[in-house]
Amino acid sequence: MTTHRFIPTLFHNTIGSHAPVLRIADGDTVIAETADAHGFDRHGAQPGTRPNPMTGPFYVEGAEPGDTLAVTIADIRMTRATGWTFDTLSPNVVDPGAVPRFPPRSKTGWIIDADAGRARLAEPPPALKDWSVAVEPMIGCFGVAPPLGQAISTATSGPYGGNMDYRGFCAGVEAMFPVSVQGALFFLGDVHAQQCDGEIVGTGIETAAEVTFSVSVVKGHAIAWPRGRNATEIFTIGNARPLDQALQHATTEMLNWLIGDFGLDEVSASHIMGQAVRYDIANVFNPAYSVVCRIALSALTGLR
Amino acid sequence: MTTHRFIPTLFHNTIGSHAPVLRIADGDTVIAETADAHGFDRHGAQPGTRPNPMTGPFYVEGAEPGDTLAVTIADIRMTRATGWTFDTLSPNVVDPGAVPRFPPRSKTGWIIDADAGRARLAEPPPALKDWSVAVEPMIGCFGVAPPLGQAISTATSGPYGGNMDYRGFCAGVEAMFPVSVQGALFFLGDVHAQQCDGEIVGTGIETAAEVTFSVSVVKGHAIAWPRGRNATEIFTIGNARPLDQALQHATTEMLNWLIGDFGLDEVSASHIMGQAVRYDIANVFNPAYSVVCRIALSALTGLR
Amino acid sequence: MTTHRFIPTLFHNTIGSHAPVLRIADGDTVIAETADAHGFDRHGAQPGTRPNPMTGPFYVEGAEPGDTLAVTIADIRMTRATGWTFDTLSPNVVDPGAVPRFPPRSKTGWIIDADAGRARLAEPPPALKDWSVAVEPMIGCFGVAPPLGQAISTATSGPYGGNMDYRGFCAGVEAMFPVSVQGALFFLGDVHAQQCDGEIVGTGIETAAEVTFSVSVVKGHAIAWPRGRNATEIFTIGNARPLDQALQHATTEMLNWLIGDFGLDEVSASHIMGQAVRYDIANVFNPAYSVVCRIALSALTGLR
Amino acid sequence: MTTHRFIPTLFHNTIGSHAPVLRIADGDTVIAETADAHGFDRHGAQPGTRPNPMTGPFYVEGAEPGDTLAVTIADIRMTRATGWTFDTLSPNVVDPGAVPRFPPRSKTGWIIDADAGRARLAEPPPALKDWSVAVEPMIGCFGVAPPLGQAISTATSGPYGGNMDYRGFCAGVEAMFPVSVQGALFFLGDVHAQQCDGEIVGTGIETAAEVTFSVSVVKGHAIAWPRGRNATEIFTIGNARPLDQALQHATTEMLNWLIGDFGLDEVSASHIMGQAVRYDIANVFNPAYSVVCRIALSALTGLR
Repeated sequence: MTTHRFIPTLFHNTIGSHAPVLRIADGDTVIAETADAHGFDRHGAQPGTRPNPMTGPFYVEGAEPGDTLAVTIADIRMTRATGWTFDTLSPNVVDPGAVPRFPPRSKTGWIIDADAGRARLAEPPPALKDWSVAVEPMIGCFGVAPPLGQAISTATSGPYGGNMDYRGFCAGVEAMFPVSVQGALFFLGDVHAQQCDGEIVGTGIETAAEVTFSVSVVKGHAIAWPRGRNATEIFTIGNARPLDQALQHATTEMLNWLIGDFGLDEVSASHIMGQAVRYDIANVFNPAYSVVCRIALSALTGLR
Repeated sequence: MTTHRFIPTLFHNTIGSHAPVLRIADGDTVIAETADAHGFDRHGAQPGTRPNPMTGPFYVEGAEPGDTLAVTIADIRMTRATGWTFDTLSPNVVDPGAVPRFPPRSKTGWIIDADAGRARLAEPPPALKDWSVAVEPMIGCFGVAPPLGQAISTATSGPYGGNMDYRGFCAGVEAMFPVSVQGALFFLGDVHAQQCDGEIVGTGIETAAEVTFSVSVVKGHAIAWPRGRNATEIFTIGNARPLDQALQHATTEMLNWLIGDFGLDEVSASHIMGQAVRYDIANVFNPAYSVVCRIALSALTGLR
Repeated sequence: MTTHRFIPTLFHNTIGSHAPVLRIADGDTVIAETADAHGFDRHGAQPGTRPNPMTGPFYVEGAEPGDTLAVTIADIRMTRATGWTFDTLSPNVVDPGAVPRFPPRSKTGWIIDADAGRARLAEPPPALKDWSVAVEPMIGCFGVAPPLGQAISTATSGPYGGNMDYRGFCAGVEAMFPVSVQGALFFLGDVHAQQCDGEIVGTGIETAAEVTFSVSVVKGHAIAWPRGRNATEIFTIGNARPLDQALQHATTEMLNWLIGDFGLDEVSASHIMGQAVRYDIANVFNPAYSVVCRIALSALTGLR
Repeated sequence: MTTHRFIPTLFHNTIGSHAPVLRIADGDTVIAETADAHGFDRHGAQPGTRPNPMTGPFYVEGAEPGDTLAVTIADIRMTRATGWTFDTLSPNVVDPGAVPRFPPRSKTGWIIDADAGRARLAEPPPALKDWSVAVEPMIGCFGVAPPLGQAISTATSGPYGGNMDYRGFCAGVEAMFPVSVQGALFFLGDVHAQQCDGEIVGTGIETAAEVTFSVSVVKGHAIAWPRGRNATEIFTIGNARPLDQALQHATTEMLNWLIGDFGLDEVSASHIMGQAVRYDIANVFNPAYSVVCRIALSALTGLR
């Protein structure tokens, strides 16, 4: 159970079968720095480029196609006192006729006070001079190499993970990915200090960070879409357009989880899901949208 | 401020400009009984028919086109110890290839213990013998007469409300509807004892109820889609297919709320929404799906 | 087999169970005038109002729920030398980011020369001074009363027909509708002198017309969605959003047609459809989009 | 202007920046063999694997990012007397409730008689014993390397082309692709002997072929989505889900074509498109659906 410190010098704009930057063992912990979505690091230098430059890949010993890679996010620490967002709603999230009401989209700066746990606009419009938001860091883009030798832009996502932009991928969460290649090849980056459901301005508060995570290989346990678990819930995430299809993927994955791991059949699983499911719209901005299907652990008590 | 008791003898399967069953004043309270989605009442008799037979319409004195009707739900009381659900996930919420895995859909009974606040399957499969859910009553279908003299099936929904099946329409909520006809003509019914996000088995726990609500007319304040408010949040709801379009309607309505009532411009409203919005998928089963856009009141503090 | 001449004096903006304007027998022919989408008639007077004021309903003797009403369009004659369109693409048919490139939408006039069979802009921009289009009249909105006593805006469409805006509903076509009420209650209007696939500027060339049609009741033959037939093809039409769902409805209806009337099973029908189906996008503008599934009669030769 | 003959020995299942198999000059012609969608060649051997193994890439001298690569399909010759299809409609193209009506999907064989120009099922069900279809070969999957060093599965498509499965990509067509890398890196394969609109059984008649094509580099002319041209029409193709978004891409690309190459503004282009556009649904099966926007050259006569 080694702990590695890793500071990237090169970044990838695709998730694919690239040369590993570090080989780690099942159970190891990594403390890795990430640059922001446009490649700016903790010092404000720009060693990476858009979109979403990735730290990694990390080769996990023992991980093989058909396994699941579990990644536990222990901590996401802000390494920079600044972030940025876009300043208008994305045109695809409002009624088409409302699109011309917005001025052209600009990048705008934020001040991140990690100690106080608050972030605020660097140059707020008058109405927002006293307005701030909580700092609740999350990982925007992470995942493992996809099959077929593919290398896929970090702008989008798929069964392998990628740019899911889900605010639920925060400290305390175990994320699970389907392994498609030897060593899994895990990438991460694109940390946000805060983000709404849907990422509807096209960004969270984009910033650099230091992420502490540990890996675990679940041998011979195949999953079709990313899964997660925190102290109170289990969840699955589907990535596709439209939201309807992302929801179908997430719902089917949850169905398979309940059947595979809890010994239920389709009808029993339907009864539970029909009263207990919660959905989150993680992002409705990227080429693939992301929908999360959650169930509280409390809704799974009393199962025989 | 009169309180009316109303027990329906006829029911409507459309929301439209039907003859009022009661005329009430701005500020009045009504305690009204509702039948379940297939028309069964508190006694198990079936005075109504599917889909979603409505109690009403109630003519609200003073309500005119261009106004908003605010309906505060004070209480939803279970009047029957039984409910029912469908027993399989709806085919449209899973991957198309998974549809054949389910047996044909059946109705199944539930026991509702309102005092204990729990509901359980009447004839549970073995795995669910000890499993139960909380009773958290909500109104599945309610709204006001649409414009143009339309009469629209209670299976679906629109700007006028209708079969939105949102678990957030529970006691303690003020729901707002755009008035299109003289007297607003308010209908309600289709109460559920419990329901997940998305209504993904095609029902909540369908049952009869007694709903206590009061009405308030907001003169000269036009809205485009239903809105709501509870102790901690404001929300809007868009009804359409696919989810993407329902989300666009809800998001645009929230934008207009922040601009119209909080004095913000598009950029300031985007900043707030971009960090604070939460989405709920109310239903992903009916002809029109429903997506809710929520903002915590706490995210609106500090505005100048 | 009577031929009726009908000039409307009142118009409906919903398709529903309104009082019949004329009772006709199975086999009768009607020559009926229609106003344009905003209610202007052949004389330029405006006896109707938007949206899509309907001529009718015509009560067809003998038509009952569960039957099919077949309407053969014998002729669509232009009764006015002018029409109008909108002058920009609808914001929902271009990439959201392209929406701000268009000026605000305006109505613009057209000159219709029915004898020459050409239409041209009344005040063309310089590049289009010598540009014109063929006159190929079609019915934008027609159908029969929906079930449940519904009355539905003529802006949209459904299983009962309505505002499908399909350029294939032209002279020489037999259109079929599922009968839901006694007498079927057939409405028509919203004739276009020309229109592209998709109705992507939100209109065809909107004008007044005189439509000659005859009706035929197919007893005991139920269909789920409108169907059609011309000299070379059979087709079905699904009305919903998104296009994907409209396509599912149209494809399923064609499957059922091949199975029900041609004696095929699902696999044989799949083989034919898999090589022979053509799709038209009738409209991608209205609240419900319309997709047509066509099969050439020549692709159905050689069936045993 | 050299003519090259190329018989592949290795195949790619992704479209990406792979090592070129041949370098060709602007204007050259290539006669290249292709294997079928599961990798079977003209001899029935299987040198490739699913999905859609590609012949290529061909490096085109002089092609640089920002250019357009025009590929003229001179001929598609059948090299095998057999093909195959799936035998049921894909579950995503029918109403979700109709999915269980189909038996499990199987591969079924076809006899291709290229001389007679007809194809028929090898083991037809009784109803189809005398039924056959025309042989009208088309290229299912072709395109150029995408940007960012991506390598994308040949199951799907994007701005770079890919698995568009459009029956309009047949002999006599010039297809145009946006160049993202030096040499363009052109791939092709997945020829079908016949296919309906939508590829709704998930395949055309999959077979091996010999394709004769020539290449032309259009320097400094950037396009965003594939375009095409034949004797009577110009067209654009958008690849995305749902169909609505694919249609938006294709429509926007056609708008840009009319503005960029015909000197029109948005309003003039809207007038033409609003009366003249035709849409094809190329495929509604692959991860990205494909919609084609076409305009007849005759609709562009008379422009100043």
